[in-house]
Amino acid sequence: MSNTAESAKTIYLDYAATTPTDPGVLKAMLPYFSSDYSNASSMHSSGRRAGQAISQARSDIAAVLNCAPQEIIFTGSGTESDNLALLGIARAYRSQGDHIIISAIEHKAVMESTKLLEREGFKVSIAPVRTDGCIKVEPLLELLTNKTTIVSVMYANNEIGTIQPIQELALAIQEWKKDNGNRELPFFHTDACQAAGFLSLDVRELGIDLMTVNSSKIYGPKGVGILFKKKNLKLQPIIVGGEQESNLRAGTENIALIVGMAEALKIADESRHKESKRLSGLRDYFISKLLATIPLSILNGNRVSRLPNNVHISIPHIEGESILLMLDKFGIEASTGSACSAYDLRPSHVLMAIGQTPEFAHGSIRFSLGRGTTKVDIDYVLKIFPPIAQRLSAISALTVKTHEKK
Amino acid sequence: MSNTAESAKTIYLDYAATTPTDPGVLKAMLPYFSSDYSNASSMHSSGRRAGQAISQARSDIAAVLNCAPQEIIFTGSGTESDNLALLGIARAYRSQGDHIIISAIEHKAVMESTKLLEREGFKVSIAPVRTDGCIKVEPLLELLTNKTTIVSVMYANNEIGTIQPIQELALAIQEWKKDNGNRELPFFHTDACQAAGFLSLDVRELGIDLMTVNSSKIYGPKGVGILFKKKNLKLQPIIVGGEQESNLRAGTENIALIVGMAEALKIADESRHKESKRLSGLRDYFISKLLATIPLSILNGNRVSRLPNNVHISIPHIEGESILLMLDKFGIEASTGSACSAYDLRPSHVLMAIGQTPEFAHGSIRFSLGRGTTKVDIDYVLKIFPPIAQRLSAISALTVKTHEKK
Repeated sequence: MSNTAESAKTIYLDYAATTPTDPGVLKAMLPYFSSDYSNASSMHSSGRRAGQAISQARSDIAAVLNCAPQEIIFTGSGTESDNLALLGIARAYRSQGDHIIISAIEHKAVMESTKLLEREGFKVSIAPVRTDGCIKVEPLLELLTNKTTIVSVMYANNEIGTIQPIQELALAIQEWKKDNGNRELPFFHTDACQAAGFLSLDVRELGIDLMTVNSSKIYGPKGVGILFKKKNLKLQPIIVGGEQESNLRAGTENIALIVGMAEALKIADESRHKESKRLSGLRDYFISKLLATIPLSILNGNRVSRLPNNVHISIPHIEGESILLMLDKFGIEASTGSACSAYDLRPSHVLMAIGQTPEFAHGSIRFSLGRGTTKVDIDYVLKIFPPIAQRLSAISALTVKTHEKK
Repeated sequence: MSNTAESAKTIYLDYAATTPTDPGVLKAMLPYFSSDYSNASSMHSSGRRAGQAISQARSDIAAVLNCAPQEIIFTGSGTESDNLALLGIARAYRSQGDHIIISAIEHKAVMESTKLLEREGFKVSIAPVRTDGCIKVEPLLELLTNKTTIVSVMYANNEIGTIQPIQELALAIQEWKKDNGNRELPFFHTDACQAAGFLSLDVRELGIDLMTVNSSKIYGPKGVGILFKKKNLKLQPIIVGGEQESNLRAGTENIALIVGMAEALKIADESRHKESKRLSGLRDYFISKLLATIPLSILNGNRVSRLPNNVHISIPHIEGESILLMLDKFGIEASTGSACSAYDLRPSHVLMAIGQTPEFAHGSIRFSLGRGTTKVDIDYVLKIFPPIAQRLSAISALTVKTHEKK
């Protein structure tokens, strides 16, 4: 297989790992590096101007989320926002309870937070999901106790793209709270890193208490995220030593990135409906062609309640890493699942949670589409990928045979 | 006082709060926003290229610090690095001790970390400083116990500019460890955020175990910092959920900012001697003229063992905030102390620690010089500032008189 001619153009299909920064976003950021660079906490004119730029960014984001500007906390990443939500609420409400519930397919930023909390004496329950990755509402409700302080369920899964019924869940938790003496707790957090740009982020409509959004998945810069936190909720900070972000996240305000994220979210929200429609069409075309041309291949996740940009399939007996490296030779960039654990060779916890067998789980590949993806790109992949899958399957069959002979 | 003509140009003298991003640094960063934007943890070609860019940045920084690349942890800020050092070591070595020592004039990022740790049951000792802000070595050594796991003393103070004898301190702690049965603990951390760009960051020469450096004080972008941590030292992460930074700091690698910080540190290190000499000359000229022309004014901090860019004076009976706002009208941007607590009106803990009286502490102003500062700028301030100080003193005297009459 020669890749000289084939890989002249790179076809990036890993938008769920990260997106390029939108040129308009970069343009909005540029003045804040070398010209309007002041510390937003400084009292002089340029410091106050920096503070105003951050206020404006906060308001712009609040407008998309339909919340108050002071309900937005700027952080350094989606991971940090997830950590702040889980650790921040659990520790702040420790005196009222030591129990946390998360779904079985959360991002590691949520999962590892609960592991930290377990070491601090907290108890963690894992809410199961169906084989399509959708959360089971009733079993989750049954896990609620009067010691539960936070429930965290991601809006859409980063690996298999399943969209969760967040509004329904939020309502069910509200009902449970009403039925249990109008309790204040638990609070409901959702990690919306993958949902942003495709689904509504209206926190009032969703009925949630906390929400994580990341800039680097919505064509904004890396290194900034937000946590929406409803007014009056207590939160113990994880980074301390300055009064920034209402004493909830210390450190010099990262003005360029903050302005960039606000711009990116505005653009993402404006183009959301159109882009979702366009990508859903491409996705469905891509999925049906793949399943039709690659023997034994299966789609993971719900076919309908699915992110418009997610295509995640498994092929038995072959290694996702091998597929990935072969595709890479042809200039096609995809992923085996989450970039955050790309070099971890254990089968993904998400695939295990939906009951996938290891032989399928290991042969998984995720294509995540984005603004730059065209039908021409997809057709190119459809030309290249099936023969690769066939070849890898043949090698695998041969290896199995050879082993059997010994 | 009219400021129309006067304030046509802004004279920024708040480089200790933050610096503009060097145009060369910004140029180095730009490709990583919209072109080479991949997730550095992705396995495909562009992901691996991103990983290589980060490795290169890590090596470049390690070269300046004279350490191994794997001893560099990228974080989101100097504050986060300080937090990670203090919380990370204290928590990781909890089974071996519950005692921490910091100096009385640490940055809030260190101070607040110890307050968090106190709530977790740790004991914190505060090492006193002399009236010039220099640490007293003997009293610090007397605080050491076989329960001490970390000592943190900043390399140079952000408010009054005093440079600490880090090498001497490190040696003394090493001696103490030898004399106490060749103990492994305590580890020695220094916050070098203000020192970087002026003083040597050679960690072997300094003899330290951990060091914090911030990008936004050395003409690099905001939103990235590093923690140097000697090999084999355990550290409990504060942001979890991904395998980045050897499992010590989760979250998508912020490639543009990381590349920018490395470039900024290289430039700062190269220009260090020349720029320190140039600014020390300007600083000394500025200080002597100020003290000579403003009655009762005093210089805070050590006059010799002092950051080349720091001028921090106090004038009794007038408010630093008033000076700052008056200067601002004339286009001169300075600070009352730390930007991180600019809106906190209590007298600075640093000034209290050096034994400054409240009447002097309240009338403090910090001018911090930088690459853009010229003698013309300083002469302009020397023309504007003394009359302002005189006018404010007169108003203050009048107010006192009026109060006395009542």
